Amino acid sequence: MSRYVAILAGGSGTRLWPLSRSRRPKQLLSLVGARSLIQATVDRVSSVASPDRILVVTEASHAEDVRAQLPEIPTENILVEPTRRGTAAAVGLAAAHIAHRDPAASMASLHSDAAVADADEFGACLTAAFEVAESDDWLVTLGIRPTHPHTGMGYIQVGQPMGLFHGRHAFRAVRFVEKPDRATAEQFIRAGYVWNPGMFVWRVDVILREYARLLPDIADALIRIQQAIGTRSEAETLRDRYGTIRVETIDYGIMERAERIATIPSTFGWSDVGSWAELMEIAPKDPAGNVVQGEHLGIDTRGTLVIGEHKPVFTLGVDDLVIVDLPDALLVCSRASAERLKELVERVQSDPRWSDLT
Amino acid sequence: MSRYVAILAGGSGTRLWPLSRSRRPKQLLSLVGARSLIQATVDRVSSVASPDRILVVTEASHAEDVRAQLPEIPTENILVEPTRRGTAAAVGLAAAHIAHRDPAASMASLHSDAAVADADEFGACLTAAFEVAESDDWLVTLGIRPTHPHTGMGYIQVGQPMGLFHGRHAFRAVRFVEKPDRATAEQFIRAGYVWNPGMFVWRVDVILREYARLLPDIADALIRIQQAIGTRSEAETLRDRYGTIRVETIDYGIMERAERIATIPSTFGWSDVGSWAELMEIAPKDPAGNVVQGEHLGIDTRGTLVIGEHKPVFTLGVDDLVIVDLPDALLVCSRASAERLKELVERVQSDPRWSDLT
Repeated sequence: MSRYVAILAGGSGTRLWPLSRSRRPKQLLSLVGARSLIQATVDRVSSVASPDRILVVTEASHAEDVRAQLPEIPTENILVEPTRRGTAAAVGLAAAHIAHRDPAASMASLHSDAAVADADEFGACLTAAFEVAESDDWLVTLGIRPTHPHTGMGYIQVGQPMGLFHGRHAFRAVRFVEKPDRATAEQFIRAGYVWNPGMFVWRVDVILREYARLLPDIADALIRIQQAIGTRSEAETLRDRYGTIRVETIDYGIMERAERIATIPSTFGWSDVGSWAELMEIAPKDPAGNVVQGEHLGIDTRGTLVIGEHKPVFTLGVDDLVIVDLPDALLVCSRASAERLKELVERVQSDPRWSDLT
Repeated sequence: MSRYVAILAGGSGTRLWPLSRSRRPKQLLSLVGARSLIQATVDRVSSVASPDRILVVTEASHAEDVRAQLPEIPTENILVEPTRRGTAAAVGLAAAHIAHRDPAASMASLHSDAAVADADEFGACLTAAFEVAESDDWLVTLGIRPTHPHTGMGYIQVGQPMGLFHGRHAFRAVRFVEKPDRATAEQFIRAGYVWNPGMFVWRVDVILREYARLLPDIADALIRIQQAIGTRSEAETLRDRYGTIRVETIDYGIMERAERIATIPSTFGWSDVGSWAELMEIAPKDPAGNVVQGEHLGIDTRGTLVIGEHKPVFTLGVDDLVIVDLPDALLVCSRASAERLKELVERVQSDPRWSDLT
């Protein structure tokens, strides 16, 4: 049974603003090490799938950058969404292409903009998930053991054990809950819930059957798109049909409503790099706890992130700051306030002076 | 009796680094308001001396900028030191030129890089100092009522009262003491000492007599330079003689050793703008206590200095920072550490990568 990996590379978050912005999304940035997040994601799945079985779903505005960053991926594996229609459409598009190539294939669906500390453990868990998915008609999700009561995450209630797969324990997933309040998140952690990082594995026939059952309108569009693959009307069909798909997430559209869901609770050091503070958690630090990219001289400087793209940055007597110096914008922010960056970005977005900055 | 003002515009301090540096000294910067410190100094003495009686002593590397900033000062009043030989030489050069024009003139000597909050009171005190100087052979110094036990200042012990001049009280100055330790500075403040801001007034014949008595070698060079003024050998004499003058300050060379010194304790809001923290004290602030030059958006930002020369600066959740963003260097420093900037500048100066930055 052939194994494919679909990598979702749409999205244009501004959570690492001003470095990430619509024309330069997070997945294309080298935030942890020299490889960008999407390059590291491809590297990480190489033990499971060869480049010809890795598909990337992206949008037109990022397609050129994605191709340039991933020369090993065949061009026909870079699927370009005509418009953004949510993760249900994007995952479905990848599933349709994989089903066209091999209706008996299994596939993983991963995000392109997360970081993983332990690639070996990730590879083992992914393999385990493929084994679960291929053993029956399970929708499998990797779960992340929570490190703190994060209120921005989706949580999965872990149910009955299903046994060992590739040395990892699999469980029934009882339910998915999006973004709880803090008290609920704390309760979830005590009850053994895991985070849902949006890493799914299933057989393509199984997931397409679920689309037909739970999202029949989307399934209909996907069938038309799949039928046109390799024909002269492929591009036209994609353009016409994809644009009509209703915007829906895979989590809400499928996972929260499906019945046979399994999860493999994992500890491979996952982060969605959702804020400057989170980047600081996972990035390599100097002895004073600073994370530095670029030329920097600091005296009496601790716990500070310095990104200097084009000129030296000098710091003196500062603690726990985020300093991002780009040619067209400078951000100086306390680590404690990094979670509130959205407030600032919204103000920037609403100001015509700064229309190029977001 | 004609009154002249000499403004000393040598020096290339890095105390407001990276904005101030050798090629862009503090006196040429617009730090408080739209006018540069040297322009504001000229503005401030306009009640005492017309532009043709204002002389500026500067060095070759700044002469062009000084002329450009002070178009109202006749070119022949911009005196260019062939090399820097300290304030005794610079003040002596101005005195020689003034004596050449009017041997009976009186003159003030002021620094070009200080800020004064109350220009009217300053003008009144300066007039009072001229009256004291013209009443007899006094060397008069304006004294500043200390606001705190500053250990970087020179202090003047105030002696017997000399009466009212232009409505201000003049006193004998008992002695000059440079840069005391903190305990001594506190003692000085309790004993009524005043700061010495290097603002002197005297008759030119009196000061040149003091040079002859206390600094005879410098006086000899000055006499030769004065004799050559207006002759074909003026430039050559200046170049040859000035370079041989021993480096000496007016404070140590004259004021600490002269006998007939008077002082007028003053309260016109003087600052030598000797650090970013001092600039923040005197600069106009927004309601959150921020001092901003350039484009800035701050959320939850207090007591912070933002200088953004070329692009917008965004701050979030920061207090009491100094942020100076220039095209070739960024400084982020806590206000509390601003006094230690020298440590950082020394590290920058010793690094060949950054030779253009100081």
